[in-house]
This record gives sequence, structure tokens and C-alpha cells, in this order.
Amino acid sequence: MTLENKIFKNLKNKNLTLATVESATGGYLSYLLTKIPGSSTIFKGSFVVYSLDSKNKLFKLPKNLLQETQGVSKEVAAYLAEKIRKKLKTNIGISVVGFAGPTAKKGIKVGTTFLAISDKERIFVTSAVIDGSRDKVRKKTAKLAAEILYQYLKTL
Amino acid sequence: MTLENKIFKNLKNKNLTLATVESATGGYLSYLLTKIPGSSTIFKGSFVVYSLDSKNKLFKLPKNLLQETQGVSKEVAAYLAEKIRKKLKTNIGISVVGFAGPTAKKGIKVGTTFLAISDKERIFVTSAVIDGSRDKVRKKTAKLAAEILYQYLKTL
Repeated sequence: MTLENKIFKNLKNKNLTLATVESATGGYLSYLLTKIPGSSTIFKGSFVVYSLDSKNKLFKLPKNLLQETQGVSKEVAAYLAEKIRKKLKTNIGISVVGFAGPTAKKGIKVGTTFLAISDKERIFVTSAVIDGSRDKVRKKTAKLAAEILYQYLKTL
Repeated sequence: MTLENKIFKNLKNKNLTLATVESATGGYLSYLLTKIPGSSTIFKGSFVVYSLDSKNKLFKLPKNLLQETQGVSKEVAAYLAEKIRKKLKTNIGISVVGFAGPTAKKGIKVGTTFLAISDKERIFVTSAVIDGSRDKVRKKTAKLAAEILYQYLKTL
């Protein structure tokens, strides 16, 4: 069974719904999570907030926090996961922010990514540095997010 | 030059910004349009509205229209393209809705898709029937949307 299938079955069995926010991955996580026919029963939607501007506009993320971090930090990831869960009224919210390259913020490695999962009781944030070309980084980051989501689902 | 590169250059030269709404393609169009480094200057964001519920919640699409069409029609595509352009304050809005399969609304072919492009003066809607597996339909539909966007940009 593919990872997408396992996630789908797990959510379905537990009667849980999901929403995502993506930045660097640009929609690829959402694409993965909707691969399975019938995903609309568990996957409610995603916001791809590609510019700082849209992060601010859609989620009212303070502009100074965004400028300081260029939208890529543990805090931003946690904030977005929590917000999308509430906005789309789902059980679980996931967010992915990062620098896909070829450039990143000064002093931070290209491929640095922060992932957050939020439910009613908890927010879980983790980070990773993914290597490869821009496209590889984006695809690998989305797959990592799906993998972390699955690990999280198994604990429920 | 790749199609994504051509679109990026064209938007950049004309100083235009873009936002998308996707249903059946699940984020793949957005992924394509953010392949190029620096895309955040032209691509402001995307809403992946995978469920009828999220179409209604985020865009206030009348529930009876959604139920009648299952969210897949010329009218829905036009409405979404216009709304996302206004929501994200961009020059251009694009939407893609469709039945990626393996099932579709009764009497409608799997792979049926409606694409709309909206700017300040016009809304342009077109439709196509894309064949192949669910994943092929989704990827081909997203590529078709990008192709139509490029043809549209050339007319500006």
C-alpha cells in the first residue's frame, strides 16, 4: 500500500479530517494527499501561501515576524497549522514552510524546512534540512510531511 | 525554455501577479507555477478547495449550485477565478475544477474539466475532457491550465 493510501485509510477509520498550509512545497503535499479517490471525505483543502504577503493577508501573521524569519521558522509553522485547522474546521492541520532554494535566508541552509501538525490538544513542530535541487527539495519535503503525518496518526 | 519559465518571464515582464484555485488537480497547478525560483514575486497563492464544503466555506458558493453541479461547471469555474483574484488582490485569477476519476457525476465523462481565467475586464472559461488514469488526468489538466494561461498571457 502506498503512503497516501495508508494515510487515507487511517484518517477514514478514525473519522478524522485534514487541512494543510504550504509554502515552499507549493501545493505538492496537497497533491499527494488527494491522490486517492474519495479523498474529499478526509481532505478539506489547502492554502498555498507562496508570498509573505499572502501569509499576512490570509492568516494575519504579524509582518515583523514574517520579515524577521522570511516566513520560515518553527513559530510560523506552528501558527499556520493551528490557523488552517480552525479556518477549515478540521481535526488536524498541517503546515510546511521552508527554503526550497536555490537561495535561503542568510545563515540558513537551503533545504531547511519546518513542519507542524496541530490537533485540538497539541501542536507538534519539527525541522529538517533536505538536500538536492529545488525540485527535489520540494518533492522530498512534501513526502517527509506525509511520512510525519502518518507516524503521528499511528499514535492516535 | 520550459512552459513554467515562459509563464514566469511573461508575468514578470508585464508586472502581473497571479492566484489560483484548484479542485481536482489538488495543488499540482500551483506546484507547477512555483517551480521557478523567485515565483513568489508573481505567484501570490492558491486555495485547494477539495471538498464541496470548503468551496462553500471559503468562497460562499451557493450550496444548491454546488450540489447540482458537484462543484464542476463553467459557472463554478468562472466564479472561483474571479473570487480568488479579488481575495488575493492579484491581476489574474485562474481556477480549475473537474472530475479526475475514477467516477464522475452521472452523465458526465471522467476527465471533464473546466478552466477559467479572470482579469479586471474579462472572464474566460473553457472546458476539456482529459483521458487517462486519475493521476494522469490530474497532471495533464494542470499542464493544460498552464498552457492556456500562457496563450492568454501572449494576447495581453
